[in-house]
Amino acid sequence: MEELRPLDALNAARNKNVMVDLKNGYRYVGKLKSFDIHINIVLDDAEEHYGGEIKRKLGNVFIRGDTITIISPA
Amino acid sequence: MEELRPLDALNAARNKNVMVDLKNGYRYVGKLKSFDIHINIVLDDAEEHYGGEIKRKLGNVFIRGDTITIISPA
Amino acid sequence: MEELRPLDALNAARNKNVMVDLKNGYRYVGKLKSFDIHINIVLDDAEEHYGGEIKRKLGNVFIRGDTITIISPA
Amino acid sequence: MEELRPLDALNAARNKNVMVDLKNGYRYVGKLKSFDIHINIVLDDAEEHYGGEIKRKLGNVFIRGDTITIISPA
Amino acid sequence: MEELRPLDALNAARNKNVMVDLKNGYRYVGKLKSFDIHINIVLDDAEEHYGGEIKRKLGNVFIRGDTITIISPA
Amino acid sequence: MEELRPLDALNAARNKNVMVDLKNGYRYVGKLKSFDIHINIVLDDAEEHYGGEIKRKLGNVFIRGDTITIISPA
Amino acid sequence: MEELRPLDALNAARNKNVMVDLKNGYRYVGKLKSFDIHINIVLDDAEEHYGGEIKRKLGNVFIRGDTITIISPA
Repeated sequence: MEELRPLDALNAARNKNVMVDLKNGYRYVGKLKSFDIHINIVLDDAEEHYGGEIKRKLGNVFIRGDTITIISPA
Repeated sequence: MEELRPLDALNAARNKNVMVDLKNGYRYVGKLKSFDIHINIVLDDAEEHYGGEIKRKLGNVFIRGDTITIISPA
Repeated sequence: MEELRPLDALNAARNKNVMVDLKNGYRYVGKLKSFDIHINIVLDDAEEHYGGEIKRKLGNVFIRGDTITIISPA
Repeated sequence: MEELRPLDALNAARNKNVMVDLKNGYRYVGKLKSFDIHINIVLDDAEEHYGGEIKRKLGNVFIRGDTITIISPA
Repeated sequence: MEELRPLDALNAARNKNVMVDLKNGYRYVGKLKSFDIHINIVLDDAEEHYGGEIKRKLGNVFIRGDTITIISPA
Repeated sequence: MEELRPLDALNAARNKNVMVDLKNGYRYVGKLKSFDIHINIVLDDAEEHYGGEIKRKLGNVFIRGDTITIISPA
Repeated sequence: MEELRPLDALNAARNKNVMVDLKNGYRYVGKLKSFDIHINIVLDDAEEHYGGEIKRKLGNVFIRGDTITIISPA
């Protein structure tokens, strides 16, 4: 993730494992499949974490962008 | 849900059962009938869950997009 | 509510009784008279519910869209 | 308030007494003088209510739209 | 403040003393010098109130519109 | 800060010391270097205050506009 | 960070170490790689801090702009 604009960094992370942290304290870990300019995200093979524990395996998941705080490599 | 853009993933989930989690902790489980670019959602045969319990059967339900955190297969 | 876009579902509910749940826990039950793209809603013969109890009879009520979580048949 | 669009309902309420409830629990009761598409509102002869009690008489008051939950006849 | 649109009411209040209440419970009382369509406000000879007490004299103050609930004559 | 529009008042405060209060209770005091229509702000020689105490000296600081409540002369 | 507009200040901080504080109390410290008009940020060699302690080393991280309060030199 070292490109010129923030969305270039997300583009470089496609098909790689990322952690997506939400404003409500939940974290989703999975393979980044797609995103858009609103930072809506789709992960594949995703797990839901809360309070340091895995809560659910979700397969794929659509995450609404305005609920996200950070996205980082897993 | 493996298409190029996040909304393609929602499109692929039409007429399938999904879970929609809200910022207030409520979850709605039902068949995805329609959505728009604001991620407003209509589910059919929907159930409302809270704290791990089914609270109500709702038939169909319109969910305002800005209250949603994630959407995943049920 | 089985049309192609979420607002079609609201259109099909015109003049029918609906429940509108707000982010602050209040619920308004009444006949759906009108709505717009912001999901601003006008109900007729409306009742205000909170904590499972009817609090007030309101006649008609304008509900600002950004305060709404879900709309479902009553 | 039985017109085709929600703002028509507000238009029909001009110069009538309305209650405006805010997200922070305050209620303003007064004569509806004007509104705009953001649902910014001006009331005349307005009273501020909180917790079921009248707190202040305000004369007229400008209410910012994004703080409003509902508007109903007083 | 009896004009056709809400911003006309603010315009009529220029150079008069107003109270501006914020979402966080603070109130600013001063002479209305200017405003814009976002309801950003500049007051002159302003005082900051909280919990019914004057906290500070501020001279003039710029108030960001999205933090405001109501504006009324002082 | 006595011009026609609120942003004119900020313009008149350039290179002067201002206090910027945030929604989260933090205050930044420093020399106003620049701002834009979103009320994003850059201060120079800035100090961070919280609960009436100086917490940090920051040199310069970029403050995101939507987190600001008021800006006043220091 | 002494240019004419706030984004010029961010531009001048590229490839330098910055602290990014979020609304939820988290702080990210790392090298500023990119930003956009929404103040979405990518940091490299980033650390996550909370309550005055380093919680995680993240390598690079995408931070959604609307969750940021301030950005300052580290």
